[in-house]
Amino acid sequence: MTITIGFIGLGNMGGPMAANLAKAGFDVTATDLSIGAVDRAVEAGCKRGETVAAAVKDADVVVSMLPAGAHVKSVYTDDYGVIANARPGALFIDSSTIDVESARAVSAAAVGKGFAMVDAPVSGGVAAATGGTLTFMVGGEAASFERARPVLEAMGKNIFHAGAAGNGQVAKIANNMLLGVTMIATCEAFNLAEKLGLDAQTFFDISSTASGQSWSMTSYCPAPGPVPAAPSNRDYQPGFAAGMMLKDMRLAQEAAHQAKAATPLGAQAEALYALMEAAGRDDLDFSGIMKLIKGAL
Amino acid sequence: MTITIGFIGLGNMGGPMAANLAKAGFDVTATDLSIGAVDRAVEAGCKRGETVAAAVKDADVVVSMLPAGAHVKSVYTDDYGVIANARPGALFIDSSTIDVESARAVSAAAVGKGFAMVDAPVSGGVAAATGGTLTFMVGGEAASFERARPVLEAMGKNIFHAGAAGNGQVAKIANNMLLGVTMIATCEAFNLAEKLGLDAQTFFDISSTASGQSWSMTSYCPAPGPVPAAPSNRDYQPGFAAGMMLKDMRLAQEAAHQAKAATPLGAQAEALYALMEAAGRDDLDFSGIMKLIKGAL
Amino acid sequence: MTITIGFIGLGNMGGPMAANLAKAGFDVTATDLSIGAVDRAVEAGCKRGETVAAAVKDADVVVSMLPAGAHVKSVYTDDYGVIANARPGALFIDSSTIDVESARAVSAAAVGKGFAMVDAPVSGGVAAATGGTLTFMVGGEAASFERARPVLEAMGKNIFHAGAAGNGQVAKIANNMLLGVTMIATCEAFNLAEKLGLDAQTFFDISSTASGQSWSMTSYCPAPGPVPAAPSNRDYQPGFAAGMMLKDMRLAQEAAHQAKAATPLGAQAEALYALMEAAGRDDLDFSGIMKLIKGAL
Amino acid sequence: MTITIGFIGLGNMGGPMAANLAKAGFDVTATDLSIGAVDRAVEAGCKRGETVAAAVKDADVVVSMLPAGAHVKSVYTDDYGVIANARPGALFIDSSTIDVESARAVSAAAVGKGFAMVDAPVSGGVAAATGGTLTFMVGGEAASFERARPVLEAMGKNIFHAGAAGNGQVAKIANNMLLGVTMIATCEAFNLAEKLGLDAQTFFDISSTASGQSWSMTSYCPAPGPVPAAPSNRDYQPGFAAGMMLKDMRLAQEAAHQAKAATPLGAQAEALYALMEAAGRDDLDFSGIMKLIKGAL
Repeated sequence: MTITIGFIGLGNMGGPMAANLAKAGFDVTATDLSIGAVDRAVEAGCKRGETVAAAVKDADVVVSMLPAGAHVKSVYTDDYGVIANARPGALFIDSSTIDVESARAVSAAAVGKGFAMVDAPVSGGVAAATGGTLTFMVGGEAASFERARPVLEAMGKNIFHAGAAGNGQVAKIANNMLLGVTMIATCEAFNLAEKLGLDAQTFFDISSTASGQSWSMTSYCPAPGPVPAAPSNRDYQPGFAAGMMLKDMRLAQEAAHQAKAATPLGAQAEALYALMEAAGRDDLDFSGIMKLIKGAL
Repeated sequence: MTITIGFIGLGNMGGPMAANLAKAGFDVTATDLSIGAVDRAVEAGCKRGETVAAAVKDADVVVSMLPAGAHVKSVYTDDYGVIANARPGALFIDSSTIDVESARAVSAAAVGKGFAMVDAPVSGGVAAATGGTLTFMVGGEAASFERARPVLEAMGKNIFHAGAAGNGQVAKIANNMLLGVTMIATCEAFNLAEKLGLDAQTFFDISSTASGQSWSMTSYCPAPGPVPAAPSNRDYQPGFAAGMMLKDMRLAQEAAHQAKAATPLGAQAEALYALMEAAGRDDLDFSGIMKLIKGAL
Repeated sequence: MTITIGFIGLGNMGGPMAANLAKAGFDVTATDLSIGAVDRAVEAGCKRGETVAAAVKDADVVVSMLPAGAHVKSVYTDDYGVIANARPGALFIDSSTIDVESARAVSAAAVGKGFAMVDAPVSGGVAAATGGTLTFMVGGEAASFERARPVLEAMGKNIFHAGAAGNGQVAKIANNMLLGVTMIATCEAFNLAEKLGLDAQTFFDISSTASGQSWSMTSYCPAPGPVPAAPSNRDYQPGFAAGMMLKDMRLAQEAAHQAKAATPLGAQAEALYALMEAAGRDDLDFSGIMKLIKGAL
Repeated sequence: MTITIGFIGLGNMGGPMAANLAKAGFDVTATDLSIGAVDRAVEAGCKRGETVAAAVKDADVVVSMLPAGAHVKSVYTDDYGVIANARPGALFIDSSTIDVESARAVSAAAVGKGFAMVDAPVSGGVAAATGGTLTFMVGGEAASFERARPVLEAMGKNIFHAGAAGNGQVAKIANNMLLGVTMIATCEAFNLAEKLGLDAQTFFDISSTASGQSWSMTSYCPAPGPVPAAPSNRDYQPGFAAGMMLKDMRLAQEAAHQAKAATPLGAQAEALYALMEAAGRDDLDFSGIMKLIKGAL
């Protein structure tokens, strides 16, 4: 029997994710505040959902992809929202990247009403959403994770269970805080090497096989040349925009404040991406922070 | 015909390096200010060098392993030193980690007198020196690099040519600055994840296959558990001591000042390792900065 | 005619503030969740308020002193709270240090119901609260500020109007972020000078009359000696605890995130106070971060 | 009897300093590598010194004002330099801002040959050099300090004895490191306040009388308006250029490395001024780092 899905939030990421679900044979009803976004989803094989309530009322599974915690809270808990209108026992998958507190609060509200819920934020950008190769980091009960898996597999390639509710968000922001710092450090090292007379390709050849190696270097090198597919080779067109990285860095800082965790380099990296934002260049790829380091923003 | 080597500096690193050269069949005359260190080198198959001059006078190749730029300068350029006493046309290999300026100055002095010289700092600690598995990053002319290669291969596994004189030092400090930052960021991420309810093994399983991956995580994980051989599993006994990392971070900062390169995270990381030093705990492995982050130094 | 005041929140700061209002001749009804705190207020001349509703129902002016934005929101906007139970036209003075967003939201809710409201956070610690020498930074309409002035003057010495609603909070957190950074920088400078052979008193004599001068140095010197009344002379007993400073630094960071303002040193200072917290020493005075810098925490 | 002075180094600072000595009635012989600079000194009442040796051979007092430690070392210790050519028992006053190590080494060399020497770096820029209102921070023996005082008083207003040789440099760099950090923090606070709706003048009125006060705010406010004479009111034309501040921040970092002192905010501030340098804007006043913070560099 075909699984019915209500999909909420058809932006740059949500649009192609909904399309992939339809392509995989799910019966998807999609909704968004933008009529144009819904039109495109319909072209991609989804049914039109006029409202959140309409999109979720017959759904076995609800998938949401929204900008921030406040949106997730209102879409799930308002009178016209998901919890008030979904079919008893439905499974909710929130793929938004939001603060841990909101994720845990919404999950508790849903579970309290008898629903199953997982937080399942993604890594990988628009290209991975389109190609169905996203990575999902999933928080929630093991049984809910197993129910969510076939749906997630239609949108992604790597599906990780990170533990209890909210842990998907924790994995995402801890990973991305680490990524954000490592990328800046990689820029600093390539720039320093170059200013001292060591070219990028040679430094890459050495460091990528030594203790300086990281995904930031070997898969996404911020110096033009060594990794042809990296944004550095197209003048830092994203990719994963600095503004999106900054959003994640700020979520990490706020989680750190609440958890009373010290993150000196995470804090500093947030401030450096904020300098890109202040200069109006957070539209660049996050590896474009090379331009800030080089004084050429 | 057997190649003769004069070896200067028989400390924790130099001692086993000289021993490996002797074991490989080179005719090694070794010297050090410490008689005990020379005694151990003799037991390991080297000849006793009473002085620097004596150790180098019949050598085809001179290898040195010294603490800082000032030592290298005086050992090479003093009246009783290498340049004044070596055989015409000898090759000098300085494996000390020192500042770029000194490395280039000594190399120029040597080349100016008709010698060949490469700077060849290493990565890998005492275990790699003993096992003959060091990584060498080599600066100097291509012909000198080729002459040095068979000697270096007796002491190490990966031998990289980084370009002109001094570039070995550049590669080393840029790599280690990057390593030092990435290690702290990795500590921050594991600590944040744990404080938010995500255990180290699960975070490792996710992030090590995602964009947070680095050598610091996958080969040297600073959280106990995921990488059994890492110092984190023996309460951060080195390994590579924080004090040694701090020395490299300071060389990187001084090179950055001279090169007019901005290194905001490199600067911050230096200051954090300096807090370990101030607390008298720079004897710990550099991954032991986890203790500073956790407030348990 | 005597002005009647409802006072909510009788902690370390609120207790002596309420006592000063009673001493100045106001008719104060005081309430708190802690019976002991109310008992002490009664001894100091206040009437007992059994509940928030009871404390505010006959008050011309309501004064609150609460730990965080969530408390202020619920005390003011819950069904049993201030707005639902106060006399028409009453003036509300919230002296809590909270996030700007919450301050503005509660003020808007109060004004929307016909009340007047100012946010009036303080600087100066328990001693200033007891001595009636607090500084108030006040946000709200000019007319409300003028109504609040006689009440504030019974508790403080310097009363500033910072502009519209929320601006009291803005002035407080921007000032304290600056204070927090300057204090750490002052510690670093004294420590560096001392390690290079320049004693604290001599450095103070020079720098306090030169461009390094700040309130942190001249009124609160973190090196023992130059300023006898400073916490540095009593092994950093507060004073203004590092944990309280950290709370303000986090409010500043969260405001900066929302305002999209880059604060590289503010971010770093937050992280350094967080290292004190992680080490369990945020009970020390905030100038006790000297101990972190010296490695003697 | 007129005191004779040999003056070495007639740049932006040294030129007006020599002129003030001549104006005060000293018999000044001035020298510089630039003929034009010597011409201007002659117009200002100095005698022409063709060489360092010629300028110092009949001098009771030698004053030098040079760019860096390497220049001071060579000018004093070369065969054609001050020590080799000065009159027995002469007093040397080096007003250059240089690294502590070089200052102490040159002083020891001079004292070892029977001369008296003080290091006497200045604060205050070109305007203070011209107006004779510099601040001098002096290291050296008390007797040498007293001998130097009348000469220094002809060039400056505040003359401080900071203790033994090198301590003038220590006082200078510790003070300027503190100044550099405090200035950036002040920029961050004004920018944050403004983005949250609090204008610069109001924030100034509050914070300058509260715990956020500093010389950076009250004498040199980096936000335009509150302090009319500050560079912020002339689009950050110096004043004290960011490039000069950066030189001092780097001297402080290098001294901190040698002294094993942790300076997390000093390190970060150095990196932020280095971002101005990288962007080619270190010609701006150092308070122009406001432009970096605002994203408008």
